[in-house]
Amino acid sequence: MQTAGSGSSIPDPGPDLTVTEVRLTPILIADPPLLNTQGVHQPYTPRLVIEVVTAGGITGIGETYGDTRYLDLARPLADALPGRSVSDLNGLFILADEVCGDPADVSDSVDVGGLRGVQTADKLRLSVVSGFEVACLDALGKALGLPVHALLGGKVRDSVEYSAYLFYKFAEHPGGAGESEDWGAALDPAGVVAQARRFADTYGFSSFKLKGGVFPPDQEIAAIRALAAEFPGQPLRLDPNGAWSVETSLYVARELAGVLEYLEDPASTTDRMAQVAAGTDLPLATNMCVTTFPEIKEAFARDAVQVVLSDHHYWGGLRNTRELAAICRTFGVGLSMHSNTHLGISLAAMTHVAATVPNLDYACDSHYPWQSEDVITQRHVFHGGRLTVSDRPGLGIDLDRDTLAALHRRWLDDDGTMRDRDDAAAMRKADPAWTTPAVPRW
Amino acid sequence: MQTAGSGSSIPDPGPDLTVTEVRLTPILIADPPLLNTQGVHQPYTPRLVIEVVTAGGITGIGETYGDTRYLDLARPLADALPGRSVSDLNGLFILADEVCGDPADVSDSVDVGGLRGVQTADKLRLSVVSGFEVACLDALGKALGLPVHALLGGKVRDSVEYSAYLFYKFAEHPGGAGESEDWGAALDPAGVVAQARRFADTYGFSSFKLKGGVFPPDQEIAAIRALAAEFPGQPLRLDPNGAWSVETSLYVARELAGVLEYLEDPASTTDRMAQVAAGTDLPLATNMCVTTFPEIKEAFARDAVQVVLSDHHYWGGLRNTRELAAICRTFGVGLSMHSNTHLGISLAAMTHVAATVPNLDYACDSHYPWQSEDVITQRHVFHGGRLTVSDRPGLGIDLDRDTLAALHRRWLDDDGTMRDRDDAAAMRKADPAWTTPAVPRW
Repeated sequence: MQTAGSGSSIPDPGPDLTVTEVRLTPILIADPPLLNTQGVHQPYTPRLVIEVVTAGGITGIGETYGDTRYLDLARPLADALPGRSVSDLNGLFILADEVCGDPADVSDSVDVGGLRGVQTADKLRLSVVSGFEVACLDALGKALGLPVHALLGGKVRDSVEYSAYLFYKFAEHPGGAGESEDWGAALDPAGVVAQARRFADTYGFSSFKLKGGVFPPDQEIAAIRALAAEFPGQPLRLDPNGAWSVETSLYVARELAGVLEYLEDPASTTDRMAQVAAGTDLPLATNMCVTTFPEIKEAFARDAVQVVLSDHHYWGGLRNTRELAAICRTFGVGLSMHSNTHLGISLAAMTHVAATVPNLDYACDSHYPWQSEDVITQRHVFHGGRLTVSDRPGLGIDLDRDTLAALHRRWLDDDGTMRDRDDAAAMRKADPAWTTPAVPRW
Repeated sequence: MQTAGSGSSIPDPGPDLTVTEVRLTPILIADPPLLNTQGVHQPYTPRLVIEVVTAGGITGIGETYGDTRYLDLARPLADALPGRSVSDLNGLFILADEVCGDPADVSDSVDVGGLRGVQTADKLRLSVVSGFEVACLDALGKALGLPVHALLGGKVRDSVEYSAYLFYKFAEHPGGAGESEDWGAALDPAGVVAQARRFADTYGFSSFKLKGGVFPPDQEIAAIRALAAEFPGQPLRLDPNGAWSVETSLYVARELAGVLEYLEDPASTTDRMAQVAAGTDLPLATNMCVTTFPEIKEAFARDAVQVVLSDHHYWGGLRNTRELAAICRTFGVGLSMHSNTHLGISLAAMTHVAATVPNLDYACDSHYPWQSEDVITQRHVFHGGRLTVSDRPGLGIDLDRDTLAALHRRWLDDDGTMRDRDDAAAMRKADPAWTTPAVPRW
């Protein structure tokens, strides 16, 4: 309380921020047959929706990966959270260390893990904490009447730019399961350009990223050149998810010098990335070689990467993402944002944190346009390739409980084949002999 | 607003956080005749108290350096702040860049600047922003009913440990001006030990830092050895403020191996610190070689420092201090906290941020026990060398307006000799031939 001498009003004691309940809802959402070096997206992909309810009657929502190994870590954290304050965000990490335990099979996660960099126990735990952190921030913002960006120190821009995320894709899922969509196949330069044109016309994107590592490098070089011809002067990126050798990476870098804005994860491991970086002036971006704080020191010392693609899921939330941004700023490394398949909850979170980071040097990635299903009442809509930053309290989104229930029902009804993302398994429906390719693939 | 489907309460629109008024109050506070390598503290030292008033009737308070060059930067920022939200903390830096302009005489600040590392325009501006940031956080916390630590993600400890800050000192100020105090002289090992004993008995400190660079190194080595004999096994530090050559630094490091917890700024410049670090296993701490984000990359790459002593004034506030902590954590560099002469406002701020940083590896420094005057209604009291972290909204302190007015009156009445800290000028009253010693002094 203020003394009489201070001249201030007596401060409000504030709302009751104590967590009374945590709800975890694993769901399966439709995913198109998008290709990457490890296979093809399954018809449905798991996500986990996290709701944190406070004594003050506020519900905050967050989202993270929904695979079994994440669920297994999320459950003890959900059990331990009631009684704590949604403002106790630093404590979330300590609590997770205490209660989550180590995931059972870290070493057995090369398949999809290969697309997301190393899969350490710490990183899996941070990916779970991030969903809780976002839910707590949403609840805190709603309780205090502040948008999440204000809880992160306030937006420094009113809208956030995203890039079009282009994929080689099949017209339909191998085996014929899953929801249908009208994007058709994209398996050559013309298909990629048509997809990009539709993205540009529909959403106004003016940066384009192609997920590569699917076809031999010369075919992907041709696709990038076709994009450059169609969208002269516009930023282009290529991401083969570490599928190339150092030599191949340098070949592609030479071929696409002056065409690409950056080359993303051409080779796997910090050592290979450092070798590639030493041989080209093309900036190298990564969401595979630097995905955790412990990976930063060596990668930066060796100048292995010039752009870190942050992902608040990996990095442990929005506040950790801001700390990553501070590190990148301090070391003269660029910053942009990675995306995995996600819902509108995470897109809202990405937009809030991106709005607060001064050194966001590039348009952010998002899979969102590929996701036909969402659990929020009003889908985000890109205009001019941008999303407006919400000034509503919290994330500024509302949960659509009917849809959430339906997508959870799909998860409950699943025989287990979709509950853990497995792009190689999906590919085997088209090619029974398919195995996850060895790295480097080319 | 929540939709009916979301099941949540309608969020509170929140208090009006708009700044309506900013008050700047430069003051002079009593300072004992503490010695350092550049001279002696003047009888009074300038500080600036910053009050930020919101439309909701809340007043937040902050504190920073009060020298003319800081005041000159603070005034335009104070003029520009009304109309903005106290939650817009990221925007403070942008605003300061826009309105503060460059300080007039950055290059002319070697004297006291030498104790605080480089004096770039950016660093001076950040030192001013920090006072505003703390005032905004105090106001925001009061308005929302949250302690400042909760605005920083929540405390991870309930109390913060401080070290005793030992100084060689005169019994009285040269020339006889200033307030009297009963600490007496400390000009030899016995005097230093007596001072440490009093600190330990009165406040319970169990870590001790001696400000060195005052006497030839062998005398200071003797003082540290006397402390080690009096307080066996307790952490000891020595800080000559960069007064030594590389050779002298290595000599002291050899002599005090196994005795010191760390050696603070033995030599000036990153290059000399790197040379010292290469020749000793004793950790080197700094608040002179790494005092800004741009200084980090080279110093860390060369392993020039093993402990960064953060100071939220230099670094631009509490949130930047947390970013510095994240960088140190990521690069395996230790973290502790530096202090300059300060009031209870900054001590509250230091305690809040220190409570939130997991990797606070050492007891923090504070000059506070040397300050007999304060502008808060209830002085902080160290128990067992620690301060309890306040859970009251905001910083948890209240301004004593009568004292503030009296100390401002002293500033108004000053003929200009105390408004800019000048330790060499104070020393000339004892030794008319005194000039700021060249570096390295020994």
